[in-house]
Parts: sequence; structure tokens; C-alpha cells
Amino acid sequence: MTKATIIGGGVIGGGWAARFLLNGWDVAIFDPDPEAERKIGEVLTNARRALPSLYDKALPEEGALAFHSDLAEALTDATWIQESVPERLDIKHSIFDQIAEHAPKDAILGSSTSGFKPSELNEKGAAAIVAHPFNPVYLLPLVELVGHADTCARAADILKTIGMFPLTLRKEIDAHIADRMLEAVWREGLWLIKDGICTTEELDEAIRMGFGLRWAQMGLFETYRIAGGEAGMKHFLAQFGPCLTWPWTKLMDVPEFNDELVDLIAGQSDAQSGHRSIRELERLRDDNLVGMMRALKLTETGVGGVIKAHEASLPAPQPRDLPITVDRAIPQSWTDYNGHMNEAYYIEASGQATDTFMEMIGCDAAYIADGGSYFTIENHIRYLSELKEGERLTITTQVLKGKGKVMHLFHRLWGPGEVLAATVETLLLHVDLTKRGTSDPAPELAAKLEHYASAHADLPWPEGAGNFVGQR
Amino acid sequence: MTKATIIGGGVIGGGWAARFLLNGWDVAIFDPDPEAERKIGEVLTNARRALPSLYDKALPEEGALAFHSDLAEALTDATWIQESVPERLDIKHSIFDQIAEHAPKDAILGSSTSGFKPSELNEKGAAAIVAHPFNPVYLLPLVELVGHADTCARAADILKTIGMFPLTLRKEIDAHIADRMLEAVWREGLWLIKDGICTTEELDEAIRMGFGLRWAQMGLFETYRIAGGEAGMKHFLAQFGPCLTWPWTKLMDVPEFNDELVDLIAGQSDAQSGHRSIRELERLRDDNLVGMMRALKLTETGVGGVIKAHEASLPAPQPRDLPITVDRAIPQSWTDYNGHMNEAYYIEASGQATDTFMEMIGCDAAYIADGGSYFTIENHIRYLSELKEGERLTITTQVLKGKGKVMHLFHRLWGPGEVLAATVETLLLHVDLTKRGTSDPAPELAAKLEHYASAHADLPWPEGAGNFVGQR
Repeated sequence: MTKATIIGGGVIGGGWAARFLLNGWDVAIFDPDPEAERKIGEVLTNARRALPSLYDKALPEEGALAFHSDLAEALTDATWIQESVPERLDIKHSIFDQIAEHAPKDAILGSSTSGFKPSELNEKGAAAIVAHPFNPVYLLPLVELVGHADTCARAADILKTIGMFPLTLRKEIDAHIADRMLEAVWREGLWLIKDGICTTEELDEAIRMGFGLRWAQMGLFETYRIAGGEAGMKHFLAQFGPCLTWPWTKLMDVPEFNDELVDLIAGQSDAQSGHRSIRELERLRDDNLVGMMRALKLTETGVGGVIKAHEASLPAPQPRDLPITVDRAIPQSWTDYNGHMNEAYYIEASGQATDTFMEMIGCDAAYIADGGSYFTIENHIRYLSELKEGERLTITTQVLKGKGKVMHLFHRLWGPGEVLAATVETLLLHVDLTKRGTSDPAPELAAKLEHYASAHADLPWPEGAGNFVGQR
Repeated sequence: MTKATIIGGGVIGGGWAARFLLNGWDVAIFDPDPEAERKIGEVLTNARRALPSLYDKALPEEGALAFHSDLAEALTDATWIQESVPERLDIKHSIFDQIAEHAPKDAILGSSTSGFKPSELNEKGAAAIVAHPFNPVYLLPLVELVGHADTCARAADILKTIGMFPLTLRKEIDAHIADRMLEAVWREGLWLIKDGICTTEELDEAIRMGFGLRWAQMGLFETYRIAGGEAGMKHFLAQFGPCLTWPWTKLMDVPEFNDELVDLIAGQSDAQSGHRSIRELERLRDDNLVGMMRALKLTETGVGGVIKAHEASLPAPQPRDLPITVDRAIPQSWTDYNGHMNEAYYIEASGQATDTFMEMIGCDAAYIADGGSYFTIENHIRYLSELKEGERLTITTQVLKGKGKVMHLFHRLWGPGEVLAATVETLLLHVDLTKRGTSDPAPELAAKLEHYASAHADLPWPEGAGNFVGQR
């Protein structure tokens, strides 16, 4: 078992504690703040909710968490010591002195400092490295490492085992790398607010509705490599180099834009991305954007809200003999290693068909908010022909039974050319969401369901309905 | 039917064309470049693949696309005219003159300019507004609108109907809003590369492994509001205000940091986010991060690659009497409006169990790359008790039949406290991926499958297996 000692238990210290703990490390906290236990508890609650969600495997058993008022006890047997005290050099020097007295000899001492260089941290004789994480520490993998090369290498190996991404700097510099870019944007942002060009909200929209999404999956240079297109990175640089002297920001202290700089950047960009064509990079970017944008639909945040609003304005499908309950394209994120729509998304799609049918009989968001809904009890899916990325998918819904608590539906999934791609037989029961048990539907709803049930009663019994698995 | 005329058909013009066309508009292209048709065709191919994937409804039928060598013809009956010619004021003035001769009187004339202000665009008498989009235009919703207020309002209404997010500026300024921030990062980034602090690749990692992910869902100010925590935005500003005069970037032309600026920012931040507590904002942020990070696992890009690597290092579950094929937590993104795991994710989970079992019998990535695999033919799911966000889920897998092409499995999904939450009976056939038809498995694979089948042959037949839907 390995042990991490966390010195200073704010949002950052708490995030470190959670990251270690949920990866099976024991964690000792040292923080004189009487509120530390509550604050760290709140970060841990968030972390326990979020971090395991990233993985399709269980994380190791949590380690033991202990709070100490005695620094020596907190440091006993520590493999990693992480300092996250306030950003003042005198405070950091003083705590490093105390740590030096009690720390195991080969423990790594990392500082969460946003701005100080190792030469500043260690000017009184400490042997700390910068290990600068990003909030929320339990989710975001980046840790900037700066300092003694061997210690950074050992630190990097440990950070990888707790799911982090160590980025070791080639030279020390104030504020490391990421915070330099954040500070540049911060300074420009303050000008924009002060000059009345936009509000904080508008500025945030300018980020998250556009380049923020690009940067979540590729960074500045790979994005611009794509923008340069077939003409390449040098072409892009030639196009945007001159802007450096234009008043496109108020931050005018610019480097000289010469051939040497162009060659340096173009060469590094080739090394970074040259193994992929621009076409491949574009598709990778688009797949990533689609996946992330679809994820944001769930909470309707940022672009997710824009897509939901636009989707609501799209026309409803036109009914045939049976109601059409889904009409859509198949996203590439629904396909798998077999090169076709993954089996789970047939249920995602038939679930959408069930939702549409529920709305048709009045079981809409308002009805559900009032405490009534349907739960699926059984599904039987027959996969009849493959569906591919980008193909149009429509679903028709036939009511097999609609009486009392029972709703028994038969969805037919139609691929291009009216090919029957799958059938989903689904049995649902009406429930009371507050009691989490079955209940009778509201009378208007029951009436509408029975209306469809009797309208469909004379239709032929669908081939495959009522079958067991493997029945011919 | 509405018509958009696209003047200049590069990556940006092509993106506009795709955005309009896929939303049902007719599109006319005017571009003297003989390569324009090929270039726009390539953008369209990407767009047709990606844009419909965002929606759970079909987009309207595509409009008609026409290429014109005559500007007057291209402009006939246009509702929207979008100029995306190179970023030189004399070229833009000259094309605006020609447009004025032929354009319908009430058509909106938008310019994709990254940097010019409307007062510059219109100094020869044109009536253009800035309508500045972001690459890829067919996916990213942001359009910055600057210029005549009534025209911008009309433009905003139109842009919303094609799924975009218009952001109208309060005042004109060089480079609008987003590009000012991009330019600030660009300038700082060039310093970091030039000074040898990092390479382009390292700089990109510093973005996408950390703050880039945050910015895809909230922007700069909302993120910092959360960082300020319970103490609030003013506390955050008091903490980081002083850094403005420190060398945290080389861009030292900073605004004066005084009470007036603090009040302005804190007030705007309250108006933007004050209706949500910090705790709510944290959870929203975490849900968004988890959703996006899971989406990036699909392509193993950036954080997605980090998570996959870490996941591979996590220990495999320990077998009981039956093999344990899944052991994991339930992500919040798997739950739905009924407050429990959505029906589709039972198949996502049982699909993971099938994948694990396939690996156990040797049907791994290498075998699949060689052209053999299993396709699911039928699934029968019985939902027995609810599963909630964050709960531990384990799956055991019993072989009902494993002979020749047929693999018939019975997955039991166990929730907390060994409660049987669901069963999934799944029937698979071995296929030849090149012929997309059934085939016999390789002999080693058949032998391993039969080994499990005979080991499980003496086990009791599972309750519910072989049943039809609704059978008691």
C-alpha cells in the first residue's frame, strides 16, 4: 500500500486527496483549518460521483483517509507529499522546512504552485518539484512537472498510475505553460469587459460555442494545422504571421516573426501530426466534436442547449399506416469495431420510439414531473440486417396490448430502402415514480392508449412477436 | 425555399455552404477558383458525415447546390449572401461593389472576416455586417455578429434556424471577441515555442489535457467563479488580481485592476451564474467533463487515450463460480429522466460482458483484425430491479450453447448487495467480416468455446432463459 500526504486541504489539496484515495492510496491530510475535514469531504463526494464514471472497469478499493494535527505523523511512510498551501513564497518556505525534518528520505515533494519556479521554491534548501494540477484535480489529467530531472521522471511514473498526464517542462519559467496561456486570455478578457465590448457571459459563450470545443480534443497548433489545410502549416503561418503587429489584442509585446520561428513551428508541427493527413485529422476532429457535443446535450450546457433547441424546431416525421416514432440519421458514435451500429443503440433508438409514443398518449415531461411514468420490464431485440454510420433510420410502432398498467409495443426499425433492420418487442408497466412501484395510469392517458390499442387490434400479429430467443 | 449565395469557396465558404444546404436551403456558389467545386465537395462530404449525427431527428431534405461563374445569376433571389474571400480590405471592397449591383434589396450581406470592423468593410458604401463563424462551420455554432443593429437582429433569427449561435457585439472592435483571445494565446504560445519552454505538441497537451476541456462546456469566468468556491467571485479576483503585474505572460499591457473593474466583473458574473450554487455548478461541470471525456475514449484522443491506458492497467475482476465479465461503476451519463439506468445501457453493459467473454475464448482484437467476429442476432432483456448512478455493477456469464457458429450466452447483471438487477439472454453467430456472412470460427476458438459450454452444461438452466416476452 502506498501513502500520500496532502499539506493544505482546499479545493486543490482535496482534489489531490480524492485522486490518490480513489486509486487505492492511503491519504493523510495535514491542514490546521478547522473546516478542512468538511471541505475535503465535499470534494470527495464530488469525486466519488465523477471519477469512477470515466472507466468501464472498477477502480481499486479506496485507501484509508486520515486527518492529522501533527505533521510528523502525517508524513510517516509517505511516498508522495503534495503541498497546496496559499500562493506565498514565505509560507511555502516555512512548510518545506518543517517537512524536511520529518519526511521519509526518498519521498517526492510536489508543490501545486501556479506560478513559482523550482529555483524560487528551493532557495532555502528544499528539494521540491513543481507538480501543478488543474481543477477538478480528480478529473483533469494534466500535471505540469518542473524541476530536478530524476525526481520529475520518478514523479511522472507515479502520476501515470493514478490516471494523470504528466507534462515535464524543458526549462523553468514563471507560471509554467498552461497558466501562461490562461493569463494571456485573462488579461485580454479583462480589457474586453472593461472596454464594454462584452459581458462575462458573452465572453464565456464566445469560448464554449467555438474554440473551447476544439481545444478539448486538439490544441492550438494541431487545430491551426488543419486550418492551413492542404497548403500546410507554413501557409497558415504566412497568412496569420502579419496579424502579430496588428491591434488584434491589446497585448502587443510580440516575438519577432521571422523564418527561424516559422521553421521551428512547422518542423515541430510535422513531428507532432505529420503522420496523419489533413483529411484524417479533419475526420478525427469531427468525430471528437460530435461525441462531445452529443455528451453536452444531456445537460443542455452550451452547445448542448443550442442543439436541443434546434432539434425541437425540426419537423416531426409524417405517419404511415403505423405511427412513425423515430426518423433520424445514425451517428458515427453509435457504431463499433464490427463497422456497424452497436447492439446497445438499437435500444437507444427504440427507447426514443417508446418516448415518442408515450408523448403521443400524453405521458410527457409534465406528466412525468407529476410522478407517473412507464418502466420497461422486458425487451426482445431481433437483429435482422446491419445498419451503418450516416444511414437514415425510421421506426414504426404497433401496440400489441394497451390496457391498465400494461403497455406492450412492437417497434420495427427500418433502414435505407425500407429494409427491416430489426424488431424490438417491449413490455412496459405504468409506475408511480414516488413509490417506485406499479400503478394505474391517469384516465386520459389510459383512454388514449386504449384508442391506439383498439386501432391496431385488427392488424396482423407481427412476425417474431411473442417468440423466445432462437425460435424459428 | 430560401437561398444562400456563398462568395468564396474555401474551407470557411464551404462550411457555410454545407451548413445552409444540410438545413434545407438552396445554395449558390460563386468562386473563380477552378478547384472550388472539388474543395467544396470535400467539405460537404465531411459535413454530411458529421452534422446529422448531432441530432436525434432527421434534418430537412438537402437543398439544391449550384456553382455559378456569373455573379448576377448566383445572387438571384438570395436571402443571405456570405462573403468569405481572402482577408484583404481592397478585395472585400471590390466584391461588395459588384454584389451591390445585383443583390436583392433586402438580402443580408455577411462577411466572414476575422479581423475587420463594419466601419472598415463599409467605408466605400456597402451595407455588410460581420458574420464571423468558426471552423468547422458545419459543426461549431458560434457566429459573431457586428454592425447595423436591425440587420444583426434579422441575421440572428436566420442563423438560429440553421442551428447556429449568434453572438452580437455591443461595439465594433478589431478581431471581434473570440479571435482576440485566440490572438492572445497565439502570441504567448509563440513566445513559449521560441524560448524553448515547450514544443507545439507539448503546448497542445497543456491545453487539451486541462483547461481546454473546461472551456468546451463553461468559459473563463464561470470556471473561475467555481474556482473561487464558497468565497465567491470577488475573493477569486482579490487572489489573482495582483498576478496582473507579475511576469506570468510576456504580454504586459494590462488594464488597471481597481474596485470599479472588480465590481463590474463580480456583478456580471452574478447575473450570469448567480442562480446556481457553487455546488450545483461543480456537479454540472463534472457531468459535462465526464460525458465529453467518455466521448473522447472512442477515438482515444487526448484525455481519451489517457483514460484508456489507465483502464487497461486496472486489475481484472476475480471469477466466482461463473466468470465475471464486467465489474464497474455506473456513470451518471447512463441514467435517464426516470432517475435510473436507462434501458439501452443494460445492453451497453452486457455487450461489454460479451466482449470480455469473446476475449476469453480468443476472439480478441487480432482475431477480429483477421476478419472473424461474432454478430448479435437476438437479445432478450428482463429488467428486474432498478440500478442507480454510481452503483457497482458486476456481470456473470453462463454459456447455454457453444457449438459451431452458435454462441448462446446468459448474462446476469448484479447490483449492490448481490441483487439480480437484470438478465440478458443473447444469441450470437460467428461471421466472416469480409463477406459479412456467417462462417465457422477458427478451430482454437471453437475448442475454447466448447470447453466453457461443457463446463457450464451441468449448471441449472437459468430462470427466465428461453422465455418469450411477458412469460411467467
